[in-house]
Amino acid sequence: MAGGDDLKLLGAWPSPFVIRVKLALNFKGLSFENVEQDLSNKSELLLSSNPVHKKVPVLLHNGKPICESLVIVQYIDEAFAGTGPSLLPSDSHERAIARFWAAYIDDKLVPSWVQSFRGKTEEDRSEGKKHLFAAVEILEGALRECSKGEGYFGGESVGLVDVSLGGMISWLNASEVMSGTKIFDPVKTPLLAAWMERFRELDGAKAALPDVDRVVEFAKKRAAAAAAASEN
Amino acid sequence: MAGGDDLKLLGAWPSPFVIRVKLALNFKGLSFENVEQDLSNKSELLLSSNPVHKKVPVLLHNGKPICESLVIVQYIDEAFAGTGPSLLPSDSHERAIARFWAAYIDDKLVPSWVQSFRGKTEEDRSEGKKHLFAAVEILEGALRECSKGEGYFGGESVGLVDVSLGGMISWLNASEVMSGTKIFDPVKTPLLAAWMERFRELDGAKAALPDVDRVVEFAKKRAAAAAAASEN
Repeated sequence: MAGGDDLKLLGAWPSPFVIRVKLALNFKGLSFENVEQDLSNKSELLLSSNPVHKKVPVLLHNGKPICESLVIVQYIDEAFAGTGPSLLPSDSHERAIARFWAAYIDDKLVPSWVQSFRGKTEEDRSEGKKHLFAAVEILEGALRECSKGEGYFGGESVGLVDVSLGGMISWLNASEVMSGTKIFDPVKTPLLAAWMERFRELDGAKAALPDVDRVVEFAKKRAAAAAAASEN
Repeated sequence: MAGGDDLKLLGAWPSPFVIRVKLALNFKGLSFENVEQDLSNKSELLLSSNPVHKKVPVLLHNGKPICESLVIVQYIDEAFAGTGPSLLPSDSHERAIARFWAAYIDDKLVPSWVQSFRGKTEEDRSEGKKHLFAAVEILEGALRECSKGEGYFGGESVGLVDVSLGGMISWLNASEVMSGTKIFDPVKTPLLAAWMERFRELDGAKAALPDVDRVVEFAKKRAAAAAAASEN
């Protein structure tokens, strides 16, 4: 990291999108200050740094804000191109493939996963599960092509897609604990299941991924609060 | 363009996402073959080139497919870095800003615009309009910051954000014709209104943007077909 670079992350520990940014910073070997935000009482710094979405994560690089997790991850890779491993491939076609799958995770996997356990009706949640498992199966195929079945979406080392999916691991595991159903099933999606085990053991991941128990507790509290609010 | 480069665009003329890619190719000065697709009877080439989404646009570069319009535009800029003007800035922070606004157009402007005139109920459409005008106002502010009120989102020349928004111009104009309401209003959003006039006059845009009358006719036919289908 270049001398004098100041990196502050405005985050909230449970956010899969914040975890993505932590993963990217860790894998690049960049030190940063985590500035935990209270999302029920947003700080002036958060509101002025991301006036459009008013959301975490925001990365402040020498005071300049960058918003939106995928934009931030690409920024980190480009602004610190000389530091640590590259998160995006050097070949432009491979870079397009990585961006395609990162967008797929945001456009298909994340919404179906949210619907699967926060849908309003049983039917809605069941529809979400169907879409979720279809998306997981498609990602299994992507991993097979990207990694030849070993390693990562980024090939031999982690990249944009690994970071994007990696941000969700603790939450996917928490969903598994709460529902009793494997999402990355070792039988149905063996490559993803093995990828997850491998990914979790990386030092950069260990430092970024919250404990599954803590996420379970957080999810239960939030569900209870939502239920109480809907009764009032 | 490097000798021997073969560019085929699998597209459908009304798609704002296809228009984006045409704009990017035109502004880069790249010649390409447009292979119009029948979306009611998708070709083997489309299905095998984009097996995940089965959608246009797909760019085939020497036979290799690239999917998803924003991914394609960035690919074009990177793969043909030595050809024509750059669509993304060289500075990594400015590049992040451009990606942020391109994502904003896809995540906020496009869905609210769709909802505003294809929402199921009057209430739904009215809600869509509210979100649409809020998004347009935010883009007016973005244009003020990016261009200092003159030129383009990309500054003195067009870039990723101009291309992303530019792909929607014919449709926005068609919506204006059909609803009688200005979307880029010269009084409320003077910078966007002037941007649109300037953009439309560019040679690369003239060659890519479909006639508004043709889009109006297409939209009316589609609405009639949808209404007939819902009666059966």
